[in-house]
Amino acid sequence: METTVSSVTQEVFIGDHRPTVLIGERINPTGKKRLSAALKSGDMEIVRDVALGQVAAGADILDVNVVAPGVDEVALLPRVVKVVMESVQVPLSIDINNPKALEESLKIYQGKPIVNSVTGEEGSLNTILPLVKEYGAVVIGLAIDEGGIPKDPEKRVDIAHKIMERAEAFGIPREDIIIDCLALTVGADDKAALATLEAISKVKTELGVNQTLGSSNISFGLPDRHVINHAFLALAIEAGVTCPTVDAAKVRQAILATDLILGRDRFAQRYIRDYSQRGKHSN
Amino acid sequence: METTVSSVTQEVFIGDHRPTVLIGERINPTGKKRLSAALKSGDMEIVRDVALGQVAAGADILDVNVVAPGVDEVALLPRVVKVVMESVQVPLSIDINNPKALEESLKIYQGKPIVNSVTGEEGSLNTILPLVKEYGAVVIGLAIDEGGIPKDPEKRVDIAHKIMERAEAFGIPREDIIIDCLALTVGADDKAALATLEAISKVKTELGVNQTLGSSNISFGLPDRHVINHAFLALAIEAGVTCPTVDAAKVRQAILATDLILGRDRFAQRYIRDYSQRGKHSN
Repeated sequence: METTVSSVTQEVFIGDHRPTVLIGERINPTGKKRLSAALKSGDMEIVRDVALGQVAAGADILDVNVVAPGVDEVALLPRVVKVVMESVQVPLSIDINNPKALEESLKIYQGKPIVNSVTGEEGSLNTILPLVKEYGAVVIGLAIDEGGIPKDPEKRVDIAHKIMERAEAFGIPREDIIIDCLALTVGADDKAALATLEAISKVKTELGVNQTLGSSNISFGLPDRHVINHAFLALAIEAGVTCPTVDAAKVRQAILATDLILGRDRFAQRYIRDYSQRGKHSN
Repeated sequence: METTVSSVTQEVFIGDHRPTVLIGERINPTGKKRLSAALKSGDMEIVRDVALGQVAAGADILDVNVVAPGVDEVALLPRVVKVVMESVQVPLSIDINNPKALEESLKIYQGKPIVNSVTGEEGSLNTILPLVKEYGAVVIGLAIDEGGIPKDPEKRVDIAHKIMERAEAFGIPREDIIIDCLALTVGADDKAALATLEAISKVKTELGVNQTLGSSNISFGLPDRHVINHAFLALAIEAGVTCPTVDAAKVRQAILATDLILGRDRFAQRYIRDYSQRGKHSN
């Protein structure tokens, strides 16, 4: 199955036998004091720098999130989306659960964005999906519902099925849905990564849709997190993740290596080109 | 299936749901001038150092290879095996295709070693397997025969079946056979890694035996080889490799991270212990 997202100048194709698409996660104030303060004061320079840095580091799509205490999302999100659209050419993923802020951002977005995200909760399904349909966006469906993130992989797959059915009932085509099976911390539960990998495999087999994953949670609280994140990403991509949400500067090379191993990089061209351009990347 | 190898003081268990066992590959003169010269002159100090270094870096078993131009394997291999046995406590893998040198080494080995290796060639099957049986060793069967390493994963699996059948006909129990599906260079053929991973999966499903893999070949000729090797190892372990042949100092941490992801490291104890002991490792 192939998903297409676009900006006004670029189309990005996400699919099973294509190179992995990187969704850059860094435009997000969580845990970032400078970005957080800049967003609150309306200073857009840092946002622009982060956006440019992620694209230079290999992000194919940028996630845009402004949620922080004291931020007026409805006013700020469309403004940040506009600044990022003016700064970089890649398509965007609009990361918000406030329907009003989402709609204001969708109104000004040029192209076909990702909406990040809808969950299996009734409130989310009924407010987010109509907007996704109306604006012809792609939507990320999170394997979480009123009961939280199920430990059991089967139950996450059930939520994915439910989101698919509801989205299709709203007239959203199957290829415009991306599932996120979600990763819990392996330091807290040593079967957590395995549960996520199992859910990803099942979603691939049963639904065949594209999948993202915010993978860095997996190593929370553990030392040398990048070593764990890299191993997890390799296994998650093999299991079915086609567009992980990542810090491109930190994991780009590991992802390119995984694509190479999985036969998705003809003559190793992409891996070698990335190596020769290393000086231009921000890692 | 569980394979046991031993030295006079240690037993090492290789199995599907256990932590991955590392076979240290560094006692091998190929490409190592100093070690090569030392072996030729009978100087055993470097051998001892390499052996100690690999064990400190986390090798669970050491591969011992002395093959180099101008080396008398029959005289030298048993001598080196003896020195390594006296230097470290871990079990050994005797790496030779000369039956006489193998037998002389098996005669003096204390415990249950690995014999590395037998191939699918008639000459190899008929000379190596009787020695494996006679000395009660474990044997590594390489997926190669008179025609070389088949590109087609199915054909490698066929060779593995053939080796299994022949070994069992000699009275060697199934758990004493370890298969190596072999890795070719991904820089020369971008489907090479995928073929190996497919062969590993099939051997796991069809034969269920333990598997090793000399994984560093995969990245030959490419830059930043460790990034490719780490991704490949993660995928190979997930596919069914239980005792890869590696430079322990270079890949130990990536392997521990993979075990952690795959739910084989309860409470992340092994990963965290390794991190806190980092100063003692030679990487």
